[in-house]
Amino acid sequence: MSRVGIIGIGHGVFGRRSDATVQELAFEAFRDALEDAGIARDDIDASVIGSVPEYHKQRSLPGVVQEYLGVNPKPTWLTEVACASGSAAIRTAWMAIKAGVHEVVAVIGCQKMTELSTPEILGLMGRVGEVQWESVFGTTFPAYYALFARRHMHEFGTTRDQLLQVAVKNHHYGAMNPCALFRKEITLEKAKESEEVATPFQVYDCCANADGAACVILASEGAAREIAKKPVWLDGMGCATASMSVLRRPNLVGLPSAVEAARVAYEMAEVGPEDVKVADVHDCFTVAEILAYEDLGFCKKGEGGRFIADRQSYIGGKVAVNVDGGLKAKGHPIGATGVSMTVEIVKQLRGEAGERQVSDADVGLTHNVGGIGQYCFVQVLRRD
Amino acid sequence: MSRVGIIGIGHGVFGRRSDATVQELAFEAFRDALEDAGIARDDIDASVIGSVPEYHKQRSLPGVVQEYLGVNPKPTWLTEVACASGSAAIRTAWMAIKAGVHEVVAVIGCQKMTELSTPEILGLMGRVGEVQWESVFGTTFPAYYALFARRHMHEFGTTRDQLLQVAVKNHHYGAMNPCALFRKEITLEKAKESEEVATPFQVYDCCANADGAACVILASEGAAREIAKKPVWLDGMGCATASMSVLRRPNLVGLPSAVEAARVAYEMAEVGPEDVKVADVHDCFTVAEILAYEDLGFCKKGEGGRFIADRQSYIGGKVAVNVDGGLKAKGHPIGATGVSMTVEIVKQLRGEAGERQVSDADVGLTHNVGGIGQYCFVQVLRRD
Repeated sequence: MSRVGIIGIGHGVFGRRSDATVQELAFEAFRDALEDAGIARDDIDASVIGSVPEYHKQRSLPGVVQEYLGVNPKPTWLTEVACASGSAAIRTAWMAIKAGVHEVVAVIGCQKMTELSTPEILGLMGRVGEVQWESVFGTTFPAYYALFARRHMHEFGTTRDQLLQVAVKNHHYGAMNPCALFRKEITLEKAKESEEVATPFQVYDCCANADGAACVILASEGAAREIAKKPVWLDGMGCATASMSVLRRPNLVGLPSAVEAARVAYEMAEVGPEDVKVADVHDCFTVAEILAYEDLGFCKKGEGGRFIADRQSYIGGKVAVNVDGGLKAKGHPIGATGVSMTVEIVKQLRGEAGERQVSDADVGLTHNVGGIGQYCFVQVLRRD
Repeated sequence: MSRVGIIGIGHGVFGRRSDATVQELAFEAFRDALEDAGIARDDIDASVIGSVPEYHKQRSLPGVVQEYLGVNPKPTWLTEVACASGSAAIRTAWMAIKAGVHEVVAVIGCQKMTELSTPEILGLMGRVGEVQWESVFGTTFPAYYALFARRHMHEFGTTRDQLLQVAVKNHHYGAMNPCALFRKEITLEKAKESEEVATPFQVYDCCANADGAACVILASEGAAREIAKKPVWLDGMGCATASMSVLRRPNLVGLPSAVEAARVAYEMAEVGPEDVKVADVHDCFTVAEILAYEDLGFCKKGEGGRFIADRQSYIGGKVAVNVDGGLKAKGHPIGATGVSMTVEIVKQLRGEAGERQVSDADVGLTHNVGGIGQYCFVQVLRRD
């Protein structure tokens, strides 16, 4: 099967971006990706938007965004699977190219989270849990993941310190990322003093909403070899779905969708977890990164707490995880997050990550979760 | 290039469906499509949901819908491009199959429009116009299309009678469609007596919101030939985008996105408008069907009014258009509409449309518009 390559990347600053509309955020990332690829906007055959529309005053984003990018009359469409919308957008663009329908496709993850008030945002997020039987009883995202954390602590002896060490690591690397929302280190002591959110979580267990956009430009194998100096290949593309309701899951100490998506992606790319040098995973809460270590096979089930305590997910450890700061420190503009992950891994595989560079990075991975794990998209990326 | 076939179709009753949740509506259509294809749900490799999420209390629909269908842990994703969301879903499924990523994919267009109040719906619809520069000044969907109608009347002498004759035709055929919202004939006199909406439109110029779902199951050429007695082929798939703002369009008497999408679809299928025997087009307002005749090349620009007056879009005319009742009489559950169009054309090409059957239907077409024409998806379908 022919490969699909990434030939350009762009990434704006995540944060409270009251200076820009959502289409302007998209444009920043797109312009940088075009420049990075060394192509013109007329070379783009289609655009795919990853976003959750309902957070914006403007609805039906592809129309406004693509017009602002100057790519009309080419096709455009939006994909939505909650916080994994960006990865779903990459996946449909990857299919379009593999199908021979388009040759060069721009994928833009873009999201403004600050047009609405906090209560409005909490209301919308609650609706991503199952409304009919579950979220009506008050389950919120922190509460869902707090359930997972409590159970993980109970079954495997995972500690509060281990959970918060994820946050310490991600802030450590976030401090080195000029696009991150929080560019400052934190100590374990400081994290432990922060306010309670949903037992056992405190503020530093939780990622923060942010505005932001990121862009990747995908091309067919032939076009990628012609255009890009250092193409990065989307060799493994896994995607799987689990029950919406956590009550219908086999257990609360892992995401079945992540295990299955990883299996598909590894098999397609013909690699295993031991080959992955650098990964961006969905650390919406500290426990989510620990579950990811285990679900992706970086360590055994139940050993995720020790994995971070032993610094195995730092640069120099077994696999460097979220060395761009992750959702925790970089911020989480939900539709943009999946694309942002791919941008970071491309940078790493090209050797362009500066002081955050993982040495000898040849195989990288992204793990993007939607909702409470009902969706998971796993990509395995490789350089030549 | 290998073809993609449609092997199963399902279609629920459109209307005020307070008897069913959105996932139950989806299930009705999916169950019927599985039965029609003669396959089991385990044979489905992925599902794609066409819907505009924000009309539902439940958000992130793919998770709840696919779980209810029993297709987990397979991939699922949602596509959104306003009223063309269903056709965008079919297009990404078509690409997935052409890419060899999946072999059999279920596409479900599903939408409840009656969970919200009318003012809430009008508010959401207004946001599909450009919010920053245009819809803040009060442009609503009827107002946008009324602009098109006024201009068409001014430039080409199109009459009120001609516009309303579209509604008379679509109610005529809707009366024969057991899935339609309005199953009754109307007279031109009755239409002319209806209340004003936005000059020149009266009530009968406008389609009606409805709840509803439709499903098509797509398969690779090999699988389609194996499974289906009468596969129908998606041979031409056009998609194009125009400016969000109508002020930046070259004129107001056509949709540039429709002209371009049709050009791509005809070229891909190697047919012309003269080959099309039956079409489902996006008659959200009466003038929209007249623009479609012209944009699709069924007649010349400006002659659409005479085309309907001469009954050229009735069965027995040049090309039978919206003989399922169209959006006007069938109802318009926005995310389901594109899939519903494809279901009708498949029925026609299989010769299973009963009293609405177009004789010798071998080539059919769908034309699905999103927003105020910023998106258009055109499919050319063919039987063996």
